[in-house]
Amino acid sequence: MKLAELSRRSGIPTATIKYYLREGLLPPGHRVTATQAEYDESHLQRLRLVRALIQVGRVPVASAREVLTALEDEGLDHISRLGTAVSALPHGQESAEDDAAAREARDTVDVLLARLDWEHTRSCPEDSPAYRVLVTAVATLVRLGYPCGIDDLAPYAYACRQLAVTDLDLIERYESPDRQLEAAVALTVLYEPVMLSLRRIAQAEESTSRYAQPRTGE
Amino acid sequence: MKLAELSRRSGIPTATIKYYLREGLLPPGHRVTATQAEYDESHLQRLRLVRALIQVGRVPVASAREVLTALEDEGLDHISRLGTAVSALPHGQESAEDDAAAREARDTVDVLLARLDWEHTRSCPEDSPAYRVLVTAVATLVRLGYPCGIDDLAPYAYACRQLAVTDLDLIERYESPDRQLEAAVALTVLYEPVMLSLRRIAQAEESTSRYAQPRTGE
Repeated sequence: MKLAELSRRSGIPTATIKYYLREGLLPPGHRVTATQAEYDESHLQRLRLVRALIQVGRVPVASAREVLTALEDEGLDHISRLGTAVSALPHGQESAEDDAAAREARDTVDVLLARLDWEHTRSCPEDSPAYRVLVTAVATLVRLGYPCGIDDLAPYAYACRQLAVTDLDLIERYESPDRQLEAAVALTVLYEPVMLSLRRIAQAEESTSRYAQPRTGE
Repeated sequence: MKLAELSRRSGIPTATIKYYLREGLLPPGHRVTATQAEYDESHLQRLRLVRALIQVGRVPVASAREVLTALEDEGLDHISRLGTAVSALPHGQESAEDDAAAREARDTVDVLLARLDWEHTRSCPEDSPAYRVLVTAVATLVRLGYPCGIDDLAPYAYACRQLAVTDLDLIERYESPDRQLEAAVALTVLYEPVMLSLRRIAQAEESTSRYAQPRTGE
């Protein structure tokens, strides 16, 4: 298909597609004349992923390029490609502060990982950006005096463990390993606002059922 | 206590505290001389919340002021204060687009709310920023062709319903209604990075257990 059709089918303006091509986020089409190139289904597929990363995940262009490079790295096996791609996605805030609160947070998180048998992360915690973000978040809770002991965190960890099974099952519906990798990255990003908004709705519902006064005269 | 002690005990520089005072995020101290004011435990408490909102939640100053105003609004009952304060927190992206994907997303979310008996949000969905964010996120999944049917979303919703019970139980440990409100707002913000990083860790663990090749020669 021509650029115009790629734009129509993806819903992405041609100027934006040209920008993605220049930035190396989309592989070049097959040149047919000096000024025209042909694109195929793989370009359409890639555009969906780029859009998910940049528009929804607000992933910076440089990180998006890193994610895509990892997905295509023939030198890595499936699991390493996935791990490298997801690590290149933006995470929450990390802090290198090493005060008493940070040490307490690291201890708490380590006990939690042990309790959950999360051996992969335990074996090399500092390689995991998610581990560092978690320690930073728990250290902040400690500093501000809010509850964040192991028993406070455990219900969130158990829920996430269950959801990770759901996530991977969703991804395994795709047949080819390449499509699975792409879906894994896209769904990691796209389901974050789903989770956060569902949590807010659930809190509103739970608060209403606990605290709302029954209305009189109705 | 004097400003210097408030700074020492909160770990927040005096210049930042003065900025919060000017912006109305912290009520003024009790003037003792023309140049000195006295602060008490309530100021220390408030500073923790302001710090959680601004530093961790990256809440803009104007929204933080709105959250704090709602918490102190004597004209509202407990549940309305909480609802107003949490609604003033930043949410994810919302889109007003009304294409076929947006309509499909709204239908899916409405069926999900019905299945969960989430009557409060169902009765007035457009009043809930979290509802609008959820519809926007699902519409994006639809547009990009990723799975987001009711059965795909339901496990996330059930997990969040369970976590909302945990959240509210955590908050009820605080005795006074004012402290509960403050904790509700702070923990909503502070537990978001906890959830997102635990999900990433859980995914890495689940991927490793499904796909990693056992290492040979060990």
